[in-house]
Amino acid sequence: MSTSHSIAFIGTGVMGRSMAGHLMRAGHTLHVFNRTKARAQALLDAGAHWHESAGRAAAEANFVFTIVGFPNDVEQTYFGPEGVIARARPGAVLIDMTTSSPLLARRIAEAAAVRGLAALDAPVSGGDVGAREARLVIMVGGDAAAFQRAKPLLELMGKSVVHQGPPGAGQHCKMANQIGIASSMMAWCEALAYARKAGLDLARVLESIGGGSAASASMNNLAPRALRGDFQPGFYVKHFRKDMRIALESAAEMKLDLPGLAAAKKLYDQVADCGWDECGTQALYRLYLAS
Amino acid sequence: MSTSHSIAFIGTGVMGRSMAGHLMRAGHTLHVFNRTKARAQALLDAGAHWHESAGRAAAEANFVFTIVGFPNDVEQTYFGPEGVIARARPGAVLIDMTTSSPLLARRIAEAAAVRGLAALDAPVSGGDVGAREARLVIMVGGDAAAFQRAKPLLELMGKSVVHQGPPGAGQHCKMANQIGIASSMMAWCEALAYARKAGLDLARVLESIGGGSAASASMNNLAPRALRGDFQPGFYVKHFRKDMRIALESAAEMKLDLPGLAAAKKLYDQVADCGWDECGTQALYRLYLAS
Repeated sequence: MSTSHSIAFIGTGVMGRSMAGHLMRAGHTLHVFNRTKARAQALLDAGAHWHESAGRAAAEANFVFTIVGFPNDVEQTYFGPEGVIARARPGAVLIDMTTSSPLLARRIAEAAAVRGLAALDAPVSGGDVGAREARLVIMVGGDAAAFQRAKPLLELMGKSVVHQGPPGAGQHCKMANQIGIASSMMAWCEALAYARKAGLDLARVLESIGGGSAASASMNNLAPRALRGDFQPGFYVKHFRKDMRIALESAAEMKLDLPGLAAAKKLYDQVADCGWDECGTQALYRLYLAS
Repeated sequence: MSTSHSIAFIGTGVMGRSMAGHLMRAGHTLHVFNRTKARAQALLDAGAHWHESAGRAAAEANFVFTIVGFPNDVEQTYFGPEGVIARARPGAVLIDMTTSSPLLARRIAEAAAVRGLAALDAPVSGGDVGAREARLVIMVGGDAAAFQRAKPLLELMGKSVVHQGPPGAGQHCKMANQIGIASSMMAWCEALAYARKAGLDLARVLESIGGGSAASASMNNLAPRALRGDFQPGFYVKHFRKDMRIALESAAEMKLDLPGLAAAKKLYDQVADCGWDECGTQALYRLYLAS
């Protein structure tokens, strides 16, 4: 049997809830905090302990997982007066699974080290389904020894757990992933928008192109949803726009021109202007329908 | 046993050679023509019959397959004085597998009908490897009865043979496919270009993102080639640029704006300006390396 750990889990939204559930079912004790308590209720009903702040949950744990919305939320969760860094136990491993900025990940690792804490950035790919089925891709940056300690827990949530390098490397890899998704979304949306204008049967088109050189995870997962008019969020437009913004800023710092990403970001800003920020990323297809 | 047919195969380049080989191995008699005879030699050695023009090869056959370079070549192959339409036997089925314009496909079907011939447009996706392994995706436009007659032969070359609609529908579906590929190529090139600038280990990055939401057929097939510096053509830049040009023209006729495709076309024109028109499409990655 593996050791049972005392784990803090901060952020129990669509993703966090599923991920925390896998940790609990493996026999670990969970201490949770979420801005909206109602969204933690299922975990509390299953035996997790509630705390009134991120710091108080962290103070009970030797592993602290966080997955919140935006870099600002990460900043507050870690650096606030009731934050994780101020309250975590020396020796604890802090693991931020939010998609956030590489620079912020490095700042967290530095501040954590000062207090004798280890910090990893470990953003994920795979969306709501990947979280539910423990099939996430987890990209980890930070100290190699801390990675080895956290790995068995990460493997409870993911099918692929890879150490990408020093602090920030997980976030950089996730940015690379999001950059890949950005143009992939245009790819299938434009393919179907064209086919539709050409008067083709779109289900039949997907049958052909979904198995060929144009096939992608985005196409196979999201195009069928879009075609049946399902724009419910698996992954929110507003979160994807945040990711693309971070990636563009980060690329600009590196003096790297990414025309595909820039085009996708512009289109998603139009999606938001249409009032679809709370839709799933497949709402990009609606924009092409409108044109 | 299935019937043995007399088949003309016109265009024995990288793709055509493999495809014609599958037809021969299934016991059909082959009549071949190619602009450069040397490229038909392997088929001739295996028993195919050589003819001095497309029309002469076509005159021997009840199924005429063509897969040549550009729409201009298709036009000449079909409408020239020694062309397929002038010389084919009444009742024959003409099947153009070149990626060409939907409009030209309709013109061929009309001209063929006048002479009592059936014509299908049946472009393919899957590249050199798909052709070799008979795992092509074949997208077919044209008369349904002619499709049914040709289907058993097409199935010798492809894993997916789908009737997409009237004449031109196969080409339109292929355009949709190429539009999908265009942004998919930017997707993985930009993901890796970003990861490289961020100092990550690119093999490890591919290990993570190649299994997640950013994964695509393009990424999985071509990124490893690009990373080991292999820019040999599976699918030529010059041919892909032709496809994107047709797609952009066709979209413009439909008053459809495709920003992803437009961005990709612009980048590939730069690839050509660098002198890499004869490379494989993964040469796009070289452009990002240079920036």
